[in-house]
Amino acid sequence: MKRALNFNAGPAAMPAEVLQKAEKHWLNIADTGMAVMELSHRSKEYEQIHENAIQGLRKLLSIPSDYEVLFIQGGASLQFSMIPMNFLHENTSGNYVLTGSWSEKALKEAQKIGSTAPIASTKENSYRSIPQLSDINTTENAAYLHITSNNTIYGTQWHTYPTQLHIPLIADMSSDILSKQIDINQFGMIYAGAQKNLGPSGVTVVIIHKDLISQDNDHLPTMLQYKTYANNSSLYNTPPTLAIYLLSLVLEWAEEKGGLQAIEKMNENKAKYLYDAIDESDGFYLGHAEKSRRSMMNVTFNLADKEKEALFLQSASDAGFIGLNGHRSIGGCRASIYNAVPEDHVYKLAQFMKSFKRNS
Amino acid sequence: MKRALNFNAGPAAMPAEVLQKAEKHWLNIADTGMAVMELSHRSKEYEQIHENAIQGLRKLLSIPSDYEVLFIQGGASLQFSMIPMNFLHENTSGNYVLTGSWSEKALKEAQKIGSTAPIASTKENSYRSIPQLSDINTTENAAYLHITSNNTIYGTQWHTYPTQLHIPLIADMSSDILSKQIDINQFGMIYAGAQKNLGPSGVTVVIIHKDLISQDNDHLPTMLQYKTYANNSSLYNTPPTLAIYLLSLVLEWAEEKGGLQAIEKMNENKAKYLYDAIDESDGFYLGHAEKSRRSMMNVTFNLADKEKEALFLQSASDAGFIGLNGHRSIGGCRASIYNAVPEDHVYKLAQFMKSFKRNS
Ligand SMILES: Cc1ncc(COP(=O)(O)O)c(C=O)c1O
Ligand SMILES: Cc1ncc(COP(=O)(O)O)c(C=O)c1O
Ligand SMILES: [Mg+2]
Ligand SMILES: [Mg+2]
Ligand SMILES: [Mg+2]
Ligand SMILES: [Mg+2]
Repeated sequence: MKRALNFNAGPAAMPAEVLQKAEKHWLNIADTGMAVMELSHRSKEYEQIHENAIQGLRKLLSIPSDYEVLFIQGGASLQFSMIPMNFLHENTSGNYVLTGSWSEKALKEAQKIGSTAPIASTKENSYRSIPQLSDINTTENAAYLHITSNNTIYGTQWHTYPTQLHIPLIADMSSDILSKQIDINQFGMIYAGAQKNLGPSGVTVVIIHKDLISQDNDHLPTMLQYKTYANNSSLYNTPPTLAIYLLSLVLEWAEEKGGLQAIEKMNENKAKYLYDAIDESDGFYLGHAEKSRRSMMNVTFNLADKEKEALFLQSASDAGFIGLNGHRSIGGCRASIYNAVPEDHVYKLAQFMKSFKRNS
Repeated sequence: MKRALNFNAGPAAMPAEVLQKAEKHWLNIADTGMAVMELSHRSKEYEQIHENAIQGLRKLLSIPSDYEVLFIQGGASLQFSMIPMNFLHENTSGNYVLTGSWSEKALKEAQKIGSTAPIASTKENSYRSIPQLSDINTTENAAYLHITSNNTIYGTQWHTYPTQLHIPLIADMSSDILSKQIDINQFGMIYAGAQKNLGPSGVTVVIIHKDLISQDNDHLPTMLQYKTYANNSSLYNTPPTLAIYLLSLVLEWAEEKGGLQAIEKMNENKAKYLYDAIDESDGFYLGHAEKSRRSMMNVTFNLADKEKEALFLQSASDAGFIGLNGHRSIGGCRASIYNAVPEDHVYKLAQFMKSFKRNS
């Protein structure tokens, strides 16, 4: 089985075992003579898959029973709007911490809906860092505090969260959900597009405290109210059944790997290969993020010499490494090393970085 | 290869050839060493797939160049809201023809957004029929006229469209797109959730005249403006890449079958088996729809004897026929015979109906 060295930022590598399992049942799921996508979303076979996906998330993340797990379409980008639509009211404000492009976009969508306040930002230092928790002060009328837990483009990550503020903390965890253990109780809501650590694109996971789900938002489009999903087990209309099935397999795989404690350890090892290659390069490679804010998921760096950077990206591509170009908005290099990226692929990349430097 | 006798209303049967082709390339698309869902949505391999899907629709439906083809998440249900959000302005009204539950839902969502008028309805005769074209008169300030071209639940279908009215005609074609030839020029916009005739759930196709795409709707959430999709080839954020890939294969399959002319003929043959079984049953089976309004996609019927109806559904299920229960909102029997349902499966069902009657 030929497997590419896939460092894509999302959609990204899937676990090979998941793809193989899906292949095995592709034409005949649960001995029905149907493919998963041919099952009615009201059938008992599909309901089992749907429930497995919910329970898989509950187990891996130890989600307490006062939280709902929802599946919504539209990507994390639609959550940027659903959050203010559902949570902002007259005289309240959506508080945002800006740590990268995705936080900026989340704020921009909220500005269309109601009052907002960017209460902290690391833009002035090119989003290399994350604000100090003690510098984060919410406004008096804050309805919620929004953060981006991992900044996919800039390669920074929150390692502790601003939980001292007594307002619901909402985190866009699109690019680090399931990468490490977290305490769900710290959050009012977590959301994540599936296409990095969870599965294929086309489904967004929302984990939300029941107290935040208003039953009173009927002026909003039905499809944009969280209660529609909570009250109907995310089966109000046809869910993206194939994407949810693949998500359920990824969750089984994560459990088989030993759960989030084991996965966190693997991710630390993988990230260390690359950060060591950067730190031991005598300034040949320059990490973008401040060391204490480095992401375990997206390793961003430049070459000190711009011409060599272009050559590096070309040589890496020629050597079969996929997806190392930085996001088109900032350039540079980025290696995304989500859960499904095998350790030996990351090791190979670190070796390649070292040998490219030696030969330069 | 065991294939179920699948009469599901959606998600529904896929062409076996499509499933097999997808299986063949499952672990390695275009010799990349990646699964489709592992490709970046910005890669040239994925862009090719995306473009194939657009061009496949353009070709099959002879879509003129002044229409855009968009891929949106959220199902047809989200279109119920996007339509009024994008097209209703102060002093204009959304005009709706009610021919079933889905039209009612479309109207209900529009009522949250602006002025609306239900200008014709067949509710009083249990949605057995479709209004006469001559009875459809729009209000003076109509922004658009909305119809449901095929009523999945009640089994009725528009065979000609109300095009005499000089306002944009918008059709929910979720359950009959690609089932027959149509003249796109009759419509301002067509939309369809993929999970009946197009592919897996998780992608909704929108075909929209360029003149309807406002560049001026920036107060709306970015993800709910048609221009976001039109201006970015439906790649503003991460599209549901796997669903779009499978859609592209379904379109290739339809082309190989001879295009919509050939498919229309097949669908007529298939429907005739079942309607003949009903009409030749001496009132044992009762078709729900008026004969001239019958759907070629969803054949709805009751048994004159309610007790026998329950027995019929049980026996059919025991004999391996899947999905024959009517929609949970109205009960009865429904056989959905979308493009991918093989003619011999439909033939078998007609035979089963006849023999069940004989043995009763
Ligand atoms: C942190 C973060 N938020 C949001 C998004 C946008 O997600 P989507 O494409 O699902 O809308 C991304 C995509 O890369 C992301 O990394
Ligand atoms: C005609 C019609 N419109 C809308 C819908 C709702 O579609 P979705 O589940 O994609 O929101 C359906 C689903 O069966 C339908 O048949
Ligand atoms: Mg990205
Ligand atoms: Mg970022
Ligand atoms: Mg249905
Ligand atoms: Mg209907």
